[in-house]
Amino acid sequence: MQIDFSDCSVPGCGDPDAAIGVFDSGVGGLTVLQELRRLLPQENLIYLGDTARVPYGTKSAETVQKYACEAAAFLVGKRVKMVVVACNTASSVALDLLREQLPVPVIGVIEPGASGAIRVSRSGIVGVIGTEGTVASDAYPQALRALNPEVQVYSAPCPLFVPLAEEGWAQHQIAALAAQEYLAPLLAASIDTLVLGCTHYPLLKPTLKQLLPTKVELVDSAWETAQMVWQILQAGGMLNRTSSGEWQFFVTDVPRRFVRVGGAFLGADLAAVERVRLASASV
Amino acid sequence: MQIDFSDCSVPGCGDPDAAIGVFDSGVGGLTVLQELRRLLPQENLIYLGDTARVPYGTKSAETVQKYACEAAAFLVGKRVKMVVVACNTASSVALDLLREQLPVPVIGVIEPGASGAIRVSRSGIVGVIGTEGTVASDAYPQALRALNPEVQVYSAPCPLFVPLAEEGWAQHQIAALAAQEYLAPLLAASIDTLVLGCTHYPLLKPTLKQLLPTKVELVDSAWETAQMVWQILQAGGMLNRTSSGEWQFFVTDVPRRFVRVGGAFLGADLAAVERVRLASASV
Repeated sequence: MQIDFSDCSVPGCGDPDAAIGVFDSGVGGLTVLQELRRLLPQENLIYLGDTARVPYGTKSAETVQKYACEAAAFLVGKRVKMVVVACNTASSVALDLLREQLPVPVIGVIEPGASGAIRVSRSGIVGVIGTEGTVASDAYPQALRALNPEVQVYSAPCPLFVPLAEEGWAQHQIAALAAQEYLAPLLAASIDTLVLGCTHYPLLKPTLKQLLPTKVELVDSAWETAQMVWQILQAGGMLNRTSSGEWQFFVTDVPRRFVRVGGAFLGADLAAVERVRLASASV
Repeated sequence: MQIDFSDCSVPGCGDPDAAIGVFDSGVGGLTVLQELRRLLPQENLIYLGDTARVPYGTKSAETVQKYACEAAAFLVGKRVKMVVVACNTASSVALDLLREQLPVPVIGVIEPGASGAIRVSRSGIVGVIGTEGTVASDAYPQALRALNPEVQVYSAPCPLFVPLAEEGWAQHQIAALAAQEYLAPLLAASIDTLVLGCTHYPLLKPTLKQLLPTKVELVDSAWETAQMVWQILQAGGMLNRTSSGEWQFFVTDVPRRFVRVGGAFLGADLAAVERVRLASASV
């Protein structure tokens, strides 16, 4: 797979004032954006939601790789200094490909989530929930075992959690029942840590906390990712110290639904959202 | 929007032995295919699921129109004698466009569903459930009022029904709870007829029947559409009387998930499914 960078001969790499680029298939990545905003209020942020092709979680690795390359190329064209893949599915299957090809650092949500889980787990028995694509990719178990070869990982896809979050039913009895179904095998395995391996899932935290024994710690990849972005920028002397933090939003379908659903995810109004077309990546 | 028919200079129009082309965003349209198969076992059927971009129901009219044109152009390239838009969202927003441009008859699922509802309703108070896109398009109320200007229509989007059906939870307690939420305003309006305005919803029939008062009739657009296809082919002398009925399946993402989930929708194994790329329609 090749990305066409002909439009971006001068990427923002090396310029602390350049924006951080963030992409997701839709609104989910806004939970990552929110954590970045909290932790790094001076950074300029450019967010792209590929809403014409959302979701990625039920699609094949090959198709998600193509979409992720197209999204990342758009952000590099905006001269960002870093690309954050704020989507677990895309992070699971496309991170290596993006790192090979992009002229700026690429941060996914899997490694930060795995790192957080290894840090908090006492028993070394970790549960991971995510989309079908994320779970099928085996990316979390691999990342966890890279950090601790002894770790035991139990994964469960939770396909209903995304539509429940988008419907505004994350704390409805229906969400509790679905969570009960999905988590039963993980609880039977005595996990003491649960990784929220999908950017939509932080909205289900209250429901999950009610269901889980108090000993089970929730690891929120969005929060962990923001920490890692901060560390990497700081280590490279790339923190923005002059800006008041602007954000820009782009989507690939008409913005109406993104504005409506995304507002709830971000806890803020999404005023100016622009529709764009992505150039096609050759596969 | 323009469709490129340069690859299909000799469409199947006029040839009774040509196949019927059927498309949907994913597996949902297989409920329509199944009804066609039951009613017209001698017809050859070509099915296209646009699984790289599924679902259509949450996307804008403009984006769905583009996708529908690309799907229809693929089928016409296969020299079909008729195109069945086995997707309520695409039928809602793209049917006129397709009819203007395609060289073969185009049948959607809205008009047959509306016609069925007008036939069975005694009170003239009709409920319609569908995706966000279908409900927002106002296509069912318009089609119903065209047949009976006095009809009262109450619509409700049911976004959770599609993932519930695909999860195999169409008859789970969660589906019953979701149905209760969604149908409450329709029941309060005393509907006596409920149109299943999404090709996934026939899988929820048992759950809906348990919830609805016995006086409420369910109208299944898939079944109604098959009836209409039969009538139109018969009227035009276009029924296939020589074939034993072959079917072919094409998808735009890798077939694995389509084969797994689609098998349950069709009640049969999906053996040979081929992945294809659709040519881009200019907008």
